[in-house]
Amino acid sequence: MRVLITAGGTTEKIDEVRAITNHSTGRLGSLIADYFYEAGATEIVYICSEQAKRPKHIQKMRELPIVSVQDLYQTLTKELISASFDIVIHSMAVSDYYLEGTASQDVLTTEIVKQLNQHPDMSQEEAVKQGLELAFHEMTSANQPKKMSSALPTVYFQLKQTPKVIRQIKKIQPHATLVGFKLLVDVDSTELVQVASRLMEKNDADYVLANDLSQIKGDQHVGYLLQQDGSYTLFQTKQAIAKGIVEATMKGVN
Amino acid sequence: MRVLITAGGTTEKIDEVRAITNHSTGRLGSLIADYFYEAGATEIVYICSEQAKRPKHIQKMRELPIVSVQDLYQTLTKELISASFDIVIHSMAVSDYYLEGTASQDVLTTEIVKQLNQHPDMSQEEAVKQGLELAFHEMTSANQPKKMSSALPTVYFQLKQTPKVIRQIKKIQPHATLVGFKLLVDVDSTELVQVASRLMEKNDADYVLANDLSQIKGDQHVGYLLQQDGSYTLFQTKQAIAKGIVEATMKGVN
Repeated sequence: MRVLITAGGTTEKIDEVRAITNHSTGRLGSLIADYFYEAGATEIVYICSEQAKRPKHIQKMRELPIVSVQDLYQTLTKELISASFDIVIHSMAVSDYYLEGTASQDVLTTEIVKQLNQHPDMSQEEAVKQGLELAFHEMTSANQPKKMSSALPTVYFQLKQTPKVIRQIKKIQPHATLVGFKLLVDVDSTELVQVASRLMEKNDADYVLANDLSQIKGDQHVGYLLQQDGSYTLFQTKQAIAKGIVEATMKGVN
Repeated sequence: MRVLITAGGTTEKIDEVRAITNHSTGRLGSLIADYFYEAGATEIVYICSEQAKRPKHIQKMRELPIVSVQDLYQTLTKELISASFDIVIHSMAVSDYYLEGTASQDVLTTEIVKQLNQHPDMSQEEAVKQGLELAFHEMTSANQPKKMSSALPTVYFQLKQTPKVIRQIKKIQPHATLVGFKLLVDVDSTELVQVASRLMEKNDADYVLANDLSQIKGDQHVGYLLQQDGSYTLFQTKQAIAKGIVEATMKGVN
């Protein structure tokens, strides 16, 4: 039985000293990895961020560290292409956006006004959108500073959507059992289960672990493990979730 | 001898799961705190971020945890008002900006076009600036989502400058010996020393430790400890910097 697990959270660099991070301790992923090891998995690949909690048995696993979404995308794709996996657990909190560029208020305003005046043929909407694109694009070339200036009263960031990493998994390995994760904040359980079902469908996942940040406190961790037929199992602790995921997915493999 | 030390890096919240962080392990600050303890400081207040490295002797110090710049500002000000300190070491990496709000490309474009058309009396520059302000302002009221949508192709952040925390220190305690820190990335030593001198002057610091990220690797850490007369001492390791700062500042106290 070969298992691939992602754990922790990605970090998108702003400059050499600043970053946009996704909180995630990686603790749940580390527990899942340990349960798989104890259940006799022959190979476990553990893709994780630097800060992520490592499994107890990490020495018996292959650890692949990543930082950004792009790192994760490349590392995961390479693994999935080079060997087949029975089970893939994608528990990493992946940034939905990367930083395209930064701009001061003056640069942004000047570029928008320039586009408005240079393109009388365009609608104002189009000219403003073009100005926004160009202002940030200009800042992202080789002249991007190594440390952002701290002297500006107002700064703007432009963030672009990252490709959905989870979507790759079944495309490359349609026969793997895939578990996706959906974290929401302070919603009711009906909404949580609905959103998780959509994630399952879009990404061809076999299970989705749906959870709500407001119901996570240390090892107390409410989680709904959804199956494709719409049924789910409710767990109350990280340990129970981890064990539940390992047992459910191993059934499919045997 | 009463000493106050800040260490680690601040974190500015984006939503319940995302944040903008300043990398800083807090290791140098923790070493400085331990040297002060070993040199006989009677009280050490250690203001630090959650992730920051703690001194070995933290049990003998008063630890005050903070997250954001605003937390730091309040905690530091409260300490400085309530008791006098002989020495203040401000080694924390403080975010220069906080997140004022987020906006989609559509909201931003619509607001700018609206301001352009509603204010024929304004220059285009003024109308665009007003549109930028209003677009982000609308998003920052109570309706700010607990978790940012991941469905938008492009998102904008508006960041506003934070008050300079270091500037408060000598204003409240003019008789304390203050050590400021300046980190640059990949500049020559002349520029580094010049920028650090300006920081010293602006904030009435007695010493500034100037360092360059490209010359830091684990405990190997090049640091210039500048004095007000323009002279400086060059150190090569974190331990040497920490010891150098403790010895220099204690001379002033005795």
